[in-house]
Amino acid sequence: MHAYRTHTCAALTKEQVGDTVRLSGWVHKKRDHGGVLFVDLRDHYGMTQIVADEDSEALALLDGLKLESVVTIDGTVKARSEGTVNANLPTGAIEVYARSATVQSRAGELPLPVAGEQEYPEDIRLKYRFIDLRRERVHANIMLRNRVITSLRGRMIDQGFSEFQTPILGASSPEGARDYLVPSRLHPGRFYALPQAPQMFKQLLMVSGFDRYFQIAPCFRDEDLRADRAPEFYQLDFEMSFVTQEDVFQTIEPVLAGVFEEFSGGKSVTPAGEFPRIPYAEALLKYGSDKPDLRNPLIISDVTDHFQKSGFGLFEKIVGGGGRVRVIPAPATQDKSRKFFDDMNEWARREGFAGLGYVTRKGGEFGGPIAKNHGTEGMAKLYAELGLGENDGLFFAAGKEKDAAKLAGAARTRVAEELGLIEQDCFKFCWIVDFPMFEYDEDLKRVDFSHNPFSMPQGEMEALESQDPLDILAWQYDIVCNGYELSSGAIRNHRPDIMYKAFEIAGYSKDEVDANFSGMIEAFKLGAPPHGGSAPGIDRIVMLLADEPNIREVIAFPMNQRAQDLMMGAPSVVSAKQLRELSIRTVEPPQVDEAKKVRTDVIGD
Amino acid sequence: MHAYRTHTCAALTKEQVGDTVRLSGWVHKKRDHGGVLFVDLRDHYGMTQIVADEDSEALALLDGLKLESVVTIDGTVKARSEGTVNANLPTGAIEVYARSATVQSRAGELPLPVAGEQEYPEDIRLKYRFIDLRRERVHANIMLRNRVITSLRGRMIDQGFSEFQTPILGASSPEGARDYLVPSRLHPGRFYALPQAPQMFKQLLMVSGFDRYFQIAPCFRDEDLRADRAPEFYQLDFEMSFVTQEDVFQTIEPVLAGVFEEFSGGKSVTPAGEFPRIPYAEALLKYGSDKPDLRNPLIISDVTDHFQKSGFGLFEKIVGGGGRVRVIPAPATQDKSRKFFDDMNEWARREGFAGLGYVTRKGGEFGGPIAKNHGTEGMAKLYAELGLGENDGLFFAAGKEKDAAKLAGAARTRVAEELGLIEQDCFKFCWIVDFPMFEYDEDLKRVDFSHNPFSMPQGEMEALESQDPLDILAWQYDIVCNGYELSSGAIRNHRPDIMYKAFEIAGYSKDEVDANFSGMIEAFKLGAPPHGGSAPGIDRIVMLLADEPNIREVIAFPMNQRAQDLMMGAPSVVSAKQLRELSIRTVEPPQVDEAKKVRTDVIGD
Repeated sequence: MHAYRTHTCAALTKEQVGDTVRLSGWVHKKRDHGGVLFVDLRDHYGMTQIVADEDSEALALLDGLKLESVVTIDGTVKARSEGTVNANLPTGAIEVYARSATVQSRAGELPLPVAGEQEYPEDIRLKYRFIDLRRERVHANIMLRNRVITSLRGRMIDQGFSEFQTPILGASSPEGARDYLVPSRLHPGRFYALPQAPQMFKQLLMVSGFDRYFQIAPCFRDEDLRADRAPEFYQLDFEMSFVTQEDVFQTIEPVLAGVFEEFSGGKSVTPAGEFPRIPYAEALLKYGSDKPDLRNPLIISDVTDHFQKSGFGLFEKIVGGGGRVRVIPAPATQDKSRKFFDDMNEWARREGFAGLGYVTRKGGEFGGPIAKNHGTEGMAKLYAELGLGENDGLFFAAGKEKDAAKLAGAARTRVAEELGLIEQDCFKFCWIVDFPMFEYDEDLKRVDFSHNPFSMPQGEMEALESQDPLDILAWQYDIVCNGYELSSGAIRNHRPDIMYKAFEIAGYSKDEVDANFSGMIEAFKLGAPPHGGSAPGIDRIVMLLADEPNIREVIAFPMNQRAQDLMMGAPSVVSAKQLRELSIRTVEPPQVDEAKKVRTDVIGD
Repeated sequence: MHAYRTHTCAALTKEQVGDTVRLSGWVHKKRDHGGVLFVDLRDHYGMTQIVADEDSEALALLDGLKLESVVTIDGTVKARSEGTVNANLPTGAIEVYARSATVQSRAGELPLPVAGEQEYPEDIRLKYRFIDLRRERVHANIMLRNRVITSLRGRMIDQGFSEFQTPILGASSPEGARDYLVPSRLHPGRFYALPQAPQMFKQLLMVSGFDRYFQIAPCFRDEDLRADRAPEFYQLDFEMSFVTQEDVFQTIEPVLAGVFEEFSGGKSVTPAGEFPRIPYAEALLKYGSDKPDLRNPLIISDVTDHFQKSGFGLFEKIVGGGGRVRVIPAPATQDKSRKFFDDMNEWARREGFAGLGYVTRKGGEFGGPIAKNHGTEGMAKLYAELGLGENDGLFFAAGKEKDAAKLAGAARTRVAEELGLIEQDCFKFCWIVDFPMFEYDEDLKRVDFSHNPFSMPQGEMEALESQDPLDILAWQYDIVCNGYELSSGAIRNHRPDIMYKAFEIAGYSKDEVDANFSGMIEAFKLGAPPHGGSAPGIDRIVMLLADEPNIREVIAFPMNQRAQDLMMGAPSVVSAKQLRELSIRTVEPPQVDEAKKVRTDVIGD
């Protein structure tokens, strides 16, 4: 017989009744029914009920054990009596009568319990993560993560990709977020940097002639932490050669849709091949966001034209000043009180907006100050144009275009939530496309790159030479799911001549470009294929699938929000010898010096 | 038609003759046959011959392009004339007549060529790695690596393992090799460390109740570099709960044998289930090494007893002083000259040994001073005992046991190489088992751990309490293939009581153990399963399969031997602002201070 087990704790069914078995696991729960002890024995796979009575030599031993001790049980499989069968448990039809037990590990007092669903402070959970990870939900989350990643890998390989490993000890680069640095021992005064993303390497792999690269890539950013941000995180980093934007979409939609279908637990998923492509400008208009949640059926409309001349002076004034009026329908709100509408306005003010106007409509009757001033005829015309019905209310966001869009977007979410309109149990994907290549920077009073300088402009050199820079779009795209951006991506600019020209438009000389980006540009001068890719965030994907709002719930050993590993005690003080070998010295931290905030675009995906 | 290609450069055969196609790739070679230009167009997948004659508008363009430019060719597939078919190329039956060509990327002067097999200095190759990686051999090596890793993953999952990600920003630990450190911005004066191996985390995953962990784990050691060592490298890190040593062997043998069979290119591989288990002591005796190359058929024997009393005074003296005499057969050396034997002795002296004695035998006739002094009768008895024949020579390694074993091991290799006895075209695996738990440290004059303090002693507590420490063996094992150690591994000591006792034997108090290893021990006090694992080196596996002696040939973007990335310029000087944010300062390196060498055992696998 095996030293520890003949079966796992999820394996025994009525088939094995009468068999002599050996099980090992953790003492999950104990119940003493006067001379008969029931133990729920737990392992990674499941749970089996162990019974010991006064005839069993295991009774005393099990009785004396604390929960979470590890034991090996020798016993006999018995059918449970009819009333005690547990249909919810795979092993619920049987129990194991313990003839003897061996302690493998005696547990002491537990800092937090494993059984039950009681919430515990995160710092305790992280300090004793090895206990926390035994708990059902987090154990399941981590296994979900593992399976999601394995599935992603398989699906990428099925699409003809090959997984590479790129260096983790890399070079610090000026752009992007803050690097984690690693002092070099062999080169005093010099530092490696951990990759914020393997952007340069994946592009160089394309230049090296590998056709389809991917990597479940660890990435590192030394930024202030939030619920959805960890110092180290993983991307499904990929890049392809000789492709158009549409090729990228058609390749990756089956991967994403496939993995979501596999793990959504029955929730519906946008089918591969049917991810809507929404131009950036349209997204800002219709959803008030470049991360639209398509589970929300509400669509924003621009009704500025209706208020060129209006009895409602405020809007007329805004429109006259070049502003915009955007509306969010509030369907079937005939039974909503005045308070509902006023509360929305209050909410908008609390969020820092000027306020959210509204029109009510009940059985065809308009209400509220905007309707009164604008006039019933005007409102009716507006409603007709929008296709709204006789019981639909309408919220108004007015102001400068950016502000109106932002408020409308936030109100769209709020209204849909309040009215329970957000579709449940589904994952809705879309691509945001046609990002502008350039924008006018109001502070700098000049044209600058709007997102990623290294994306290929649509129309390439010809567009740069002939179009208004602010009209030029980029082959750049975001993947969005349920309102979360999973990744940005782009067809890259692989042509030095086009790159110099694009930078020239943004006000950078050839010398400046060469000084900052020579590595990449020199590589592009030695034969580079057209290429593009993206890098969906793995932790974010798992968060969506696990329905967890906090990234730390889907990472086996996360740091806390102060970037500390409380279990292992990192970061820690190191020896003087270590610092000496690295030719560095620690200094007192300077007083917080609110230096002029430097714009740090994330250049990689 | 697709913007860049209808087919890859490996796809076209006679089937497509007459088809209009579009191909994209690099200009690998050009041959001008007077008005007819032949271009080998290369992509990741293969090569296709392009033809342009004076009727083709592509001619002038292709003619003007430098090698390694990237082009798109529109053309027609034609069958090659009979004499020009290339049977070695999948596309060798056809060529593509180019109607037109589009330049995607114009290459400048190349720092090293892609076509051909010319050797180039490593620093040039690494600086322009994106060119170097286009070359056939290194391109194939990297793809082999990718496929090997994918195969390993699949095989581990088939064995019931699940892949986890453990933290890369971890805690520095006192034992092991030198850590790479990462200064913390949020915690001035404190540092993270990159993992030398995820040893603690994988064991904590077992304590967390996950049953079978693996990871293609990046590991980091700031050590001086050699041909087979890189600052960052990958392990097939794995760990299992509720297992014996034999379970580990039976689980991992199919993985290793399977992946070697898959990628060995027809070389034979020790079948799973048949990896020999060689006790450490036996390995030192029979192979003079704990990393025996089993392709070498020679077996060392201990013949000390024969020289207790011998006419050969030197050996008698060595044996009298407690030394050992070991012999290595040199089969069928009847035709070898005296010089062959003398050269071996010379070689041994050059290697720093006292010398390698020998006996020759030709047609039953013994020769050489040892035979003469020891006497024909004694030699015949010895030969009979060893089962040697009338034309077999014999080499002698004598001295203190360790020295004799080491010399015998080196001589075994040398003799087999000289005689051409090393079996070719095979991968021979074995396990080295039964490592001693403790050894007597001659310098410290006390018992110390011989390898890994955290391995479980065979016999557990009972052995520690009742046996001579130097007789106690550990559940520790190495995987060896063709003389290379792929990994060590162990059944871990998961019992705090046994751990305190083992450390006590090695002279450490409970307080000292708690001070240094409290994290692990505290976890073991809260319910730990018996567990064990190992971590075969991935780069080493790929080196063996690719038959490359240098680890940098199987890494896409390796650092050079000075731990520099010459392509990206890492490590580099960083800004004063970055250092200020991290509360560190660089200092002049100290004069080299040859501090007392500290013993640094690698604690992890």
